[in-house]
Amino acid sequence: MKLIRFGAFGKEQPGIETPDGKWLDCSPFGEDWSEEFFGENGLERLQSWLVSEIDNLKEISKKTRLGSPIKRPSKIICVGLNYSLHAKESGMAVPEIPIIFMKASSSLCGPFDEVVIPKNSQKTDWEVELAVVIGKKANYVSKEEAMEYVAGYCVHNDVSERDFQLHHGGQWVKGKSADTFAPLGPYLVTKDEIKDPHKLRLWLTVNGESLQDSNTADLVFDIPTLVSHISQYMSLLPGDVISTGTPSGVGMGLKPPRYLKEGDIVELGIEGLGVAKQKAVNYKA
Amino acid sequence: MKLIRFGAFGKEQPGIETPDGKWLDCSPFGEDWSEEFFGENGLERLQSWLVSEIDNLKEISKKTRLGSPIKRPSKIICVGLNYSLHAKESGMAVPEIPIIFMKASSSLCGPFDEVVIPKNSQKTDWEVELAVVIGKKANYVSKEEAMEYVAGYCVHNDVSERDFQLHHGGQWVKGKSADTFAPLGPYLVTKDEIKDPHKLRLWLTVNGESLQDSNTADLVFDIPTLVSHISQYMSLLPGDVISTGTPSGVGMGLKPPRYLKEGDIVELGIEGLGVAKQKAVNYKA
Repeated sequence: MKLIRFGAFGKEQPGIETPDGKWLDCSPFGEDWSEEFFGENGLERLQSWLVSEIDNLKEISKKTRLGSPIKRPSKIICVGLNYSLHAKESGMAVPEIPIIFMKASSSLCGPFDEVVIPKNSQKTDWEVELAVVIGKKANYVSKEEAMEYVAGYCVHNDVSERDFQLHHGGQWVKGKSADTFAPLGPYLVTKDEIKDPHKLRLWLTVNGESLQDSNTADLVFDIPTLVSHISQYMSLLPGDVISTGTPSGVGMGLKPPRYLKEGDIVELGIEGLGVAKQKAVNYKA
Repeated sequence: MKLIRFGAFGKEQPGIETPDGKWLDCSPFGEDWSEEFFGENGLERLQSWLVSEIDNLKEISKKTRLGSPIKRPSKIICVGLNYSLHAKESGMAVPEIPIIFMKASSSLCGPFDEVVIPKNSQKTDWEVELAVVIGKKANYVSKEEAMEYVAGYCVHNDVSERDFQLHHGGQWVKGKSADTFAPLGPYLVTKDEIKDPHKLRLWLTVNGESLQDSNTADLVFDIPTLVSHISQYMSLLPGDVISTGTPSGVGMGLKPPRYLKEGDIVELGIEGLGVAKQKAVNYKA
């Protein structure tokens, strides 16, 4: 299944995208795509429900705004330097154990929303990433069983302000957490639809120019390793997001470096997970 | 007012502690002490409601478990090295701008809950901190107006695993986020009850031995500075927690260092904000 959420920011309704590309309103199902939904076996329940109800669901215009395909999760965990060429362009070593940091969940937005360049930002940068959505509470899980805890996958632009991230105190969260810094979607693709999440092309363009183009085959730490590893340090809750890291080609790594400016158009996509597109705009009070 | 939440973990009900120390069940008010509550002017509404309803509220036994005095917030932001003697004992410089990091909100627990020493932990440490609870959405607020965005204060034990924090990838979140690593309370004290939050003694003992004893007068960055500063990097939502940093006397700073072991009793308190107490126990699957 492909889950979407549509409507005004903060008031999104749940829906699905059908195999033939229609958007259907699932609000009669009575649940949002939330922690509770994933935690209470919602994907299976939804699938059963759709068998009898799909023909009764209202089709949604493709002009409708899409929000994040999941309701705001308890946490968004990002993985740093998880493609070796990106570690190199960042001037950092390929890590021996996963580096993780958090992104404020208040940064979550829709896949076609504008990305707001924060006040006082000079270095707002892009990062296409495969995001994993957790399906059930994971605590001290092994690599072998880790995939049982995954609900599905989304495209994520882990928007990053490099000065805030690296030079305003040293903990990366400051550069990762501005409003609109986490466009997610277009949809959540459930795990069963992706044969091998470690063989997906992912790419990003700015104003049509190809800047990132890689494959999840190049992940330093794969998805089971990440889920297992993170679950040694904290409980992963249903609906939580793990963003698995970005390949090379970010603005900071270009020579000379290059960052988003008002009007820039970022497009990004992952094989099987769809395409997102955001316009960069300056902050306005 | 002093807000409490009582009952089983994850099923807490809202209540208050009265000026004469009684616990009253506020579930007839119909709201939990949540983001929505704080964001929709809940403190004022609750105060008005109590005028007519307080005599009808059920008293709760003092044997009842207390949970976190607020429902799980969108984020818990901690401030690093915000007392100069603590920076010194940590072998780090006093920061020139606030260092912030996140703690997974899944680590939140009640003020008298057991603190679980994680699997593979050798260095689980204590940190008494004044936690600030945000009252309304704060984005790019000035120092001068910052206190308008504060709902109140709580005692917080920012439990920390030092190896996980410092030597497992470098971003501190890994050492701050295990379940039970954020005992909060006993209660949230609303801002109006604390004359000056920058003149409060805070202290912590382990098995009765005084290890931390300082005063919020020694904060490197005061509360308005922190609220204003953090709001430049992300939106602070109603109910969000800012934990303002710990004074000297943590286990890592002792010579030789000393960490929590099964059966240790941690007591901690802040003038006007009450006293909490946790027993350390080993993780059991």
